[in-house]
Amino acid sequence: MNRKTPQSSQTESAEPTSLLKRHAHSVETYLRDALKRQAQAPKKLIEAIDYSLMAGGKRLRPSLVLECAVACGGEINPSALAAAGAIELIHTFSLVHDDLPAMDDDDLRRGRPTNHKVFGEAMAILAGDAMVSLAFELIATDAEPAVAPKLIAELAHATGPQGMIGGQVLDMEGEKKSLGFEELQELHRMKTGALLRSACRLGALSTNTSELQLLALTDFGRFLGLAFQIVDDLLDVTASPQQMGKATGKDAAKGKNTYPVLLGIEETKVQAQMQLYAALASLKPLGRHADGLKRIARFVVERQA
Amino acid sequence: MNRKTPQSSQTESAEPTSLLKRHAHSVETYLRDALKRQAQAPKKLIEAIDYSLMAGGKRLRPSLVLECAVACGGEINPSALAAAGAIELIHTFSLVHDDLPAMDDDDLRRGRPTNHKVFGEAMAILAGDAMVSLAFELIATDAEPAVAPKLIAELAHATGPQGMIGGQVLDMEGEKKSLGFEELQELHRMKTGALLRSACRLGALSTNTSELQLLALTDFGRFLGLAFQIVDDLLDVTASPQQMGKATGKDAAKGKNTYPVLLGIEETKVQAQMQLYAALASLKPLGRHADGLKRIARFVVERQA
Repeated sequence: MNRKTPQSSQTESAEPTSLLKRHAHSVETYLRDALKRQAQAPKKLIEAIDYSLMAGGKRLRPSLVLECAVACGGEINPSALAAAGAIELIHTFSLVHDDLPAMDDDDLRRGRPTNHKVFGEAMAILAGDAMVSLAFELIATDAEPAVAPKLIAELAHATGPQGMIGGQVLDMEGEKKSLGFEELQELHRMKTGALLRSACRLGALSTNTSELQLLALTDFGRFLGLAFQIVDDLLDVTASPQQMGKATGKDAAKGKNTYPVLLGIEETKVQAQMQLYAALASLKPLGRHADGLKRIARFVVERQA
Repeated sequence: MNRKTPQSSQTESAEPTSLLKRHAHSVETYLRDALKRQAQAPKKLIEAIDYSLMAGGKRLRPSLVLECAVACGGEINPSALAAAGAIELIHTFSLVHDDLPAMDDDDLRRGRPTNHKVFGEAMAILAGDAMVSLAFELIATDAEPAVAPKLIAELAHATGPQGMIGGQVLDMEGEKKSLGFEELQELHRMKTGALLRSACRLGALSTNTSELQLLALTDFGRFLGLAFQIVDDLLDVTASPQQMGKATGKDAAKGKNTYPVLLGIEETKVQAQMQLYAALASLKPLGRHADGLKRIARFVVERQA
């Protein structure tokens, strides 16, 4: 009875969406303020950034940052908040550039026309570029100077040639050939996995965490990242465009390498559950502080969109 | 006779090119090593980055970082070197994205086909994105932790919505209308000026500099940035494509707002000299330590390409 109750459990039911909503609200407030601080920037550019950044995503990555800080027994301090805002900027930039005609050429994202459809291709490229720069500026400016370099090195590594952007290159190159299971896992480890794993590490690094906790959350993030991508592949086959707010069935049409293509739908569902169990098992060293994270992990695998 | 001789004057003649060559060599060695460290990245992506990064630019921005560190009486330490490498990555990313079909649609850069002509549009977008991320990763990893957040905040501010990228938006919007002299200066202050000014500030911030020296180098960078852009506008009118290694006469063809268009060639030359004098005058508080910077400034205004 004397154990400190984890912050996330004080006001939450077992329902993960209220936890996600609370974290989403924190990061959206922070990001809205961050855009307001760009008072010298051309209005149209901020409008283009705001259009995609405030399009109402699930805010999964920033929520993981904040909840991992909580799981380490820490507070949601300015460093965690800056890292959360920064990773959402990086995620949003990747969507805006991914949707470009030269890349996936998508017209619809989160139920609305894609950025370049509204603002033109040049502005969409520049808005994406600006989001990357702004992400690192926010951490450098708003995080504790003692942890800022670690947070930036972590996020940049997950973003760059050996992370998400490298994964997009593998994905692009992979469209021309069929990949084996190992190659597909490597592609996903970089393309979506790197940023989800990094979200968990950023949360840990924003607190004075132990090496044990950092390793536990790194494992958690790695398994969760794979689970997320497997479910994403599944939803592209099983969900409707209305549910997803974007075109579906595109992976198969483009000959993309996905889990359902490689393993079939039933075996893919088994794989998702296996990654979920591994993710939950990784949280053991964190005890009850990780209750919120467990709920988020189950939500990731059981989501319908 | 007892005053410490500035590092840059020990081996240099009055000729600025040997000074620039020495700094270029330092930053190229650093960047080559930085790319080697990206061992887990897809080879093709590193090849695309290397193609534009190692295309033999003048390395003016990184040279200003290094020489400003010297001008503050400091050493060229790992922080200055990381900042120098980072700003060259940011500059190169901006060229790669600027050349894209959706932007300036250029085929030639530094005498070679542009990045997207060789690697395709998607890869050029991703290579540019990766360079931004890598720039901040290098500072976060290689600079002294005590100065890294200041360096990253400085460079990101100069890159983002209120700096270079914001300036590119103004430039794009300005193509549709004619700008007044004040508006043109504001555009240039952001588009090219922000990064050149930032180069000088990064050099100062990488050392334990005084506020006085930082302010002097900020002024120097601001005047030099304007001088650079004025000369750039002039060369687009007066130089040949062979001299420039890229298409010339494009500003006029696209109806871009430039100094020669607004003021005529002779008055534009006078403006360049005025900015040069102001830049040189700003260096007074730094004494003889700034001799190398003065030579670089004269080179910027007197260059023929």
